[in-house]
Amino acid sequence: MKKQRINSVTENMKKAGLTQIIVSSTASLYYLTGFWVEPHERMIALYLDISGKAILFGNEIFGLESMPDLPLINHKDGYHPIEGLAKVVKPGKLGIDKSWTSNFLIELMQLRKDIIPVQGSAPVDLARKLKDETEQTLMRKSSRINDQVVGSVIAMIKDGVTENYLASQVNKQFIKNGADCEGTQLVCFGANCADPHHNSNNTILKVGDSVLFDIFTPINRYWCDMTRTVFYKTVTDKQRQVYNLVKLANETAISKIKPGVLLSEIDETARNIITQGGYGEYFTHRLGHGIGLDCHEPPDVSLASDTSLEVGMMFSVEPGIYLPGEFGVRIEDLVMVTEDGYEVLNRYPKELQVID
Amino acid sequence: MKKQRINSVTENMKKAGLTQIIVSSTASLYYLTGFWVEPHERMIALYLDISGKAILFGNEIFGLESMPDLPLINHKDGYHPIEGLAKVVKPGKLGIDKSWTSNFLIELMQLRKDIIPVQGSAPVDLARKLKDETEQTLMRKSSRINDQVVGSVIAMIKDGVTENYLASQVNKQFIKNGADCEGTQLVCFGANCADPHHNSNNTILKVGDSVLFDIFTPINRYWCDMTRTVFYKTVTDKQRQVYNLVKLANETAISKIKPGVLLSEIDETARNIITQGGYGEYFTHRLGHGIGLDCHEPPDVSLASDTSLEVGMMFSVEPGIYLPGEFGVRIEDLVMVTEDGYEVLNRYPKELQVID
Repeated sequence: MKKQRINSVTENMKKAGLTQIIVSSTASLYYLTGFWVEPHERMIALYLDISGKAILFGNEIFGLESMPDLPLINHKDGYHPIEGLAKVVKPGKLGIDKSWTSNFLIELMQLRKDIIPVQGSAPVDLARKLKDETEQTLMRKSSRINDQVVGSVIAMIKDGVTENYLASQVNKQFIKNGADCEGTQLVCFGANCADPHHNSNNTILKVGDSVLFDIFTPINRYWCDMTRTVFYKTVTDKQRQVYNLVKLANETAISKIKPGVLLSEIDETARNIITQGGYGEYFTHRLGHGIGLDCHEPPDVSLASDTSLEVGMMFSVEPGIYLPGEFGVRIEDLVMVTEDGYEVLNRYPKELQVID
Repeated sequence: MKKQRINSVTENMKKAGLTQIIVSSTASLYYLTGFWVEPHERMIALYLDISGKAILFGNEIFGLESMPDLPLINHKDGYHPIEGLAKVVKPGKLGIDKSWTSNFLIELMQLRKDIIPVQGSAPVDLARKLKDETEQTLMRKSSRINDQVVGSVIAMIKDGVTENYLASQVNKQFIKNGADCEGTQLVCFGANCADPHHNSNNTILKVGDSVLFDIFTPINRYWCDMTRTVFYKTVTDKQRQVYNLVKLANETAISKIKPGVLLSEIDETARNIITQGGYGEYFTHRLGHGIGLDCHEPPDVSLASDTSLEVGMMFSVEPGIYLPGEFGVRIEDLVMVTEDGYEVLNRYPKELQVID
């Protein structure tokens, strides 16, 4: 068990008025125990009480082992997986991991009518939001690799390439550099860049296209995530204007990052610049998302976020402008909050690039 | 809305004593509505009552559209996604999809203290278990492609290849033949075959290795899944004995399939053969799993299953013997129950093959 992390979680439980929680998400379990389990439809639950005592409930197929400070209670396929847990939980409020599926919660409620299930992810999410030194090192390493990968793939842009080809090259470079797995890399050309969630396909590159790389993958479990947009052979005045507006939004928003500032203000800073530039309605998503063991995790970086920046928070800053039928530009960096401001994890340049 | 499928579901609701259910899993929603939505952490819920009336609750980012028989109520990111649903559900028992995450159920219970959440997936799962003609055609087509893919990749076995290389070739062939996406194909050499969930890595093929392909992917949303084991250049007497035992277990179990037989008997048939052959303790998993829009779905094909075979059921028959440190053999086919017995969807041969 990761003692210091457990301590942060139990502190957060105290503040939230919770004396017991169930942790089940793959990333949160890994964060607290070092076990990486993808349970799919099977049951896994870490029961944690306010004193820091924990018991792990799993399926024997997961191949888990008990640790001196973490007893393990295994069930077999085909047997009721909740019975052991039902013997351990105490009456009253029980915090439940947001991702635990309802079948398990309903079975637990039926076996234990004296529990009151409440939202229970916040204590772990709040701890995970503030990256410790080990995590900071891993996140920097992942983003350093991302810098290399985007550079090497931008160098492969040439006549006749397809989005799919470049996306597969991104994966190849990631794997070569130690990524945990291949992923769905977003490589978009021209009008496809105007859909922020466009999946790469066999579109062939044309002169004058914007070329957008939104590339992200876990490396040693910790995610990188960066977007760069370049242009192929020519760039119009409008493309240049939009690009520079997005770049200004990205850089100005980042420059405001320091402890105590609201995340909503960071979003607002970027949004105001794009709105004043006349493209407000084409910036259609939040400014960013927390990142770490999950690619998307708290904190939310949006106008709706009431979270204040704290040292160790890590999130993306990714303004974009999407002009349907024409082109799109997004520029995304990962940023960490430091005592005197911020550290940008990505170093690949953001100056407008026209690839010849 | 798929009227006939809705009718099956409401019939099943009657039998289960349920007057209202929430359907949320990607595959079940697609089965009933034709919408394919992967909501990730966002909320989606199809509310269905016993009269067949349905309302869909989604996030506007999903890009759904209402249909004449399916009103749509959208929420936006950052707003309470459960409010609309809470206005619609009726007091009393409410069946909940097993995969709906607890955060949504807890929010609904807090807004509506008069509901009693109960397990609610069975009515849709029971309908999905019996494939209709459209589905049968799609499943046959997927397995026909799988036959081709396994054949073309077995032809690529040669000195120096790695598991990862062959796994990537499987994906390449699947994509070329219209698969919906790449997947995690299990290609294992030698002792790695003794781990039924071994992930392909850079192990290099050696003379005398067993070579196991467990390959599966969705094609037009419907999954294929087949395992074949071959040997590289030489085969020992023990390998031959184990192979033939697994093949006998596979073929004998399949030969027992007809309406009315218990699925547990099918598992038992295969298990007895392997046990009588002296390898019972090395067949460490259930015989198979239902398959369709999900790779693993009901029915369960295990000793614990009390389900009787019905026409239109589709599942895998995949006995295996896993000898730690030595080698492993698994042979898997997809089988459909027909009026007078069964139809095996896979046609790639099962005779022992030694690749030169």
